[in-house]
Amino acid sequence: MEKLRVAVVGYGNIGRYAVDAVNGAPDMKLVGIVRRQEDVPQGVFVPVADDIGKLPNVDVALLCVPTRSVEEHAKKCLKMGICTVDSYDIHESIYELKTSLNQAAKEGGAAAVISAGWDPGTDSVVRAIMLASAPFGLTHTDFGPGMSMGHTVAAKAIGGVKNALSMTMPMGYGVHRRDVYIELEDGADFEKVRKDLLCDPYFATSDTHVYEVDDVNVLIDKGHGVDMVRKGGAGKTQNQFFQWKMTIDNPALTSQIMVACARAARRQAPGAYTMLEFPLIDLLPGGREEIIRALV
Amino acid sequence: MEKLRVAVVGYGNIGRYAVDAVNGAPDMKLVGIVRRQEDVPQGVFVPVADDIGKLPNVDVALLCVPTRSVEEHAKKCLKMGICTVDSYDIHESIYELKTSLNQAAKEGGAAAVISAGWDPGTDSVVRAIMLASAPFGLTHTDFGPGMSMGHTVAAKAIGGVKNALSMTMPMGYGVHRRDVYIELEDGADFEKVRKDLLCDPYFATSDTHVYEVDDVNVLIDKGHGVDMVRKGGAGKTQNQFFQWKMTIDNPALTSQIMVACARAARRQAPGAYTMLEFPLIDLLPGGREEIIRALV
Repeated sequence: MEKLRVAVVGYGNIGRYAVDAVNGAPDMKLVGIVRRQEDVPQGVFVPVADDIGKLPNVDVALLCVPTRSVEEHAKKCLKMGICTVDSYDIHESIYELKTSLNQAAKEGGAAAVISAGWDPGTDSVVRAIMLASAPFGLTHTDFGPGMSMGHTVAAKAIGGVKNALSMTMPMGYGVHRRDVYIELEDGADFEKVRKDLLCDPYFATSDTHVYEVDDVNVLIDKGHGVDMVRKGGAGKTQNQFFQWKMTIDNPALTSQIMVACARAARRQAPGAYTMLEFPLIDLLPGGREEIIRALV
Repeated sequence: MEKLRVAVVGYGNIGRYAVDAVNGAPDMKLVGIVRRQEDVPQGVFVPVADDIGKLPNVDVALLCVPTRSVEEHAKKCLKMGICTVDSYDIHESIYELKTSLNQAAKEGGAAAVISAGWDPGTDSVVRAIMLASAPFGLTHTDFGPGMSMGHTVAAKAIGGVKNALSMTMPMGYGVHRRDVYIELEDGADFEKVRKDLLCDPYFATSDTHVYEVDDVNVLIDKGHGVDMVRKGGAGKTQNQFFQWKMTIDNPALTSQIMVACARAARRQAPGAYTMLEFPLIDLLPGGREEIIRALV
């Protein structure tokens, strides 16, 4: 069997896990890592390049880069005929990314799977199943407990803050509390920092609790969670209840979903796809008959 | 917008709910019911026929018939160019049904969606998501509490049994207990019935509890449930935890999933498909952009 030749673009949090996930996939071969510095990180035994064009015969590129630079990287790969997978997570502009990459993908003759993570991503798929199963009713999504990257960055930007961690705490049925842990700069006043933070648009509309700590770093883990429930019905039937729950290592799950989507990318016609837009059997290794016999 | 013209074939437990679900779908029109007796059931205001050929311009037939007669009904419809949806539930022979209907579907120029219920069906889709998210590990599926049709029929066949109900009770991580409620025929001996039942191959391998009751019918509800968990990982990451849980009206959910799959059937190229083999966006009414903006 010809193995899928995969490159990991970006070697941050998700990129490191992606390397492990590709190495663990029986049908893939890691052909290289693309990062700005061409030096080889410890424990890496594949070519490292500062440009994907320098790696030989890449089938799929996993774009483990910041969300805001996904489009630029994806277009470059797609134009070279390399399929891409990203975990673009700005929900409001996913459709715009799809439109933009769809054109680039068709021009390059490759496929892009976009927003392939757990939310957006597998949670989106579960939402579709829930909605198909119960067309009327309400879906609520609780996130966490887990670190919010966006809110942590916002907290770090407040004057007097040396380091910060903003945790998303699920209070049930879609309401979240923010627990913010602050390490102060020398001489900073906690009460002033606290008030400034509570006025910040990131925190002003949520119940936010602020705590002063000596060392933020010892509080950080990469675990996260989801608890999504739908109560609804169809026809004359009420009160059908569905729940999807996960407790997971965040970057590890994101990168594994990207790896599964690399298979799907190679199996689609040129174009850009969200995870709702291709058959889910395309996520899995192995033959069609074998998968259907095992799962259906 | 042209509405999808849907016929309900079979007017038993699932067929009745299917009529309600089609009537509740904004993009569908119920064009008739097919049943052996051509008399019109109470509350039905559409044509009733004993042959699908007598209903005008059917796009999709929902085959709400016993599993063992699905293939025959499906082939008849497919050859007429009518798409079909069934909830065929004999897991061991789903692939054989697919192979058989795939040929008939291609010959007739229509699509068949097979095994479209909750298990097989949406549970199969969730299993695929779990496996893609954590390629190593274990998945356990607990069913119930809910009535097992097969075990109830087996219990009713024991000598001395007037009526019976076999409930599937989830004991956790894939182990089930059978609780069997027996209404005796006049003069039958409960101890003898109990022993005969425990020797029956349907019950011999499970922990089975048998109870004598005066009236089985008052114990029956159509509720059921699933609790499916996967604990596993990818790459070097262990202990990722996923859970899918439902508490549902069984025939109501089965029929609604069939209704959603009617949309998908019309959107596929001729052939036979399990729910793993078409994009899940095809289950939902409305435009592609609108769905992606709402769910992804």
